[in-house]
Amino acid sequence: MTFTATVLTLYPEMFPGPLGLSLAGRALAEGKWSIEPVHIRDFATDKHRTVDDTPAGGGAGMVLKADILAAAIDYARVLNPRAPVIAMTPRGKPITQARVRELAAGPGVTILCGRFEGFDERIFEGRDVEEVSVGDIVLSGGEPAALMLLDACIRLLPGVMGAASSGAEESFEDGLLEYPHYTRPTEWEGRTIPEVLRSGDHAKIAAWRKQRAEEDTRLRRPDLWERHRGARGQSASGARHEDEDLGS
Amino acid sequence: MTFTATVLTLYPEMFPGPLGLSLAGRALAEGKWSIEPVHIRDFATDKHRTVDDTPAGGGAGMVLKADILAAAIDYARVLNPRAPVIAMTPRGKPITQARVRELAAGPGVTILCGRFEGFDERIFEGRDVEEVSVGDIVLSGGEPAALMLLDACIRLLPGVMGAASSGAEESFEDGLLEYPHYTRPTEWEGRTIPEVLRSGDHAKIAAWRKQRAEEDTRLRRPDLWERHRGARGQSASGARHEDEDLGS
Repeated sequence: MTFTATVLTLYPEMFPGPLGLSLAGRALAEGKWSIEPVHIRDFATDKHRTVDDTPAGGGAGMVLKADILAAAIDYARVLNPRAPVIAMTPRGKPITQARVRELAAGPGVTILCGRFEGFDERIFEGRDVEEVSVGDIVLSGGEPAALMLLDACIRLLPGVMGAASSGAEESFEDGLLEYPHYTRPTEWEGRTIPEVLRSGDHAKIAAWRKQRAEEDTRLRRPDLWERHRGARGQSASGARHEDEDLGS
Repeated sequence: MTFTATVLTLYPEMFPGPLGLSLAGRALAEGKWSIEPVHIRDFATDKHRTVDDTPAGGGAGMVLKADILAAAIDYARVLNPRAPVIAMTPRGKPITQARVRELAAGPGVTILCGRFEGFDERIFEGRDVEEVSVGDIVLSGGEPAALMLLDACIRLLPGVMGAASSGAEESFEDGLLEYPHYTRPTEWEGRTIPEVLRSGDHAKIAAWRKQRAEEDTRLRRPDLWERHRGARGQSASGARHEDEDLGS
């Protein structure tokens, strides 16, 4: 069965967008995945095709209505019954590569993209919707986040990357950042490629790469390093790292 | 001066892409920001227009060459001399809303998008390039991350959002997740909007929203909560949060 992305959005014309090009675009053309953008406005019930309303309690902006969102989600569930439904929201759980691998191994994903001030909160209780965040920044809508999440999934689908680049040796796959890369020229502006990488000694190269992956993770991402080292129960953020599985 | 995005990429046709639509697209049409995709391949020097080579020390994939990247960056620095140069890479520092606000207040940004196995590490030493990560996932290239980062910046530019939605009350702006939203209908599938939000008592509503923002941050994002509470020097990840400013 082909990985199917159903995207619930107010801007269906944003898809496939960049995913129609390059690696993802070739895979799309070859039928290795498919995408169905669904316009949330098609589920509006009044003549103005209203999808949002003012926030209860006052405040700026507009909130996407639970009843309209539910109708769109119910439609997507008919299209792809086994796919998890994910809402892109800064209030969600930070996405992980482990969750991306789970999604890529499944039947696809239904992604709910917000605009305006966000979703009526009741949609998360009334439907089984996973709230996911990509980075601690605020976007104009969920669409750029959806494109990014889908890109991460698509490259892992069978036959999309060459066998040589299986993704086994890259950042986050073993809980570490990837080691740094170098290529020709051997000397560039007085900077040379580390000698060990030019030694031809495969064991030494592997040891150097492991050491650099560990060192860079420790210096750049102490949060990842702490988790990698199995530090548990020592801080609130340690607790977060242990609760990694987002479920589905 | 207009915010100018220069994007160094092997897929210039991906831009503006989704940023040509909706909020960002209107702002682009109105001249509130501009974008210049620059093809990295234009800086290749051989007849095959080579931009990458095999990794020193062996391994899968290809690495973007430092000499070609440097030529592209030097060109971008002529186009927009005061803009910081940011490389999208999972080895980078996680992006924050504070950094997005800094970028949006500046002359623009030059974004370097990788493909294949990544960049020759020497480019980060040889040029002043800030390594930035958007989420702990691996993409097929930096382009989807660049689109997301630009979207976050553009919505903050003067006149892009209405004055009513200044972005002051939203996730991360005060170090907390935003409180949940509700809108009509008052009852949906047996679920009602919290009574306080229908009370008309503005002080009570503000207190409820503050309490929910704090509670949801504590439960969903103990890492953010720890930082918000000013916990310092107690754990490695506490240390990371204190070293927030990415520089420019």
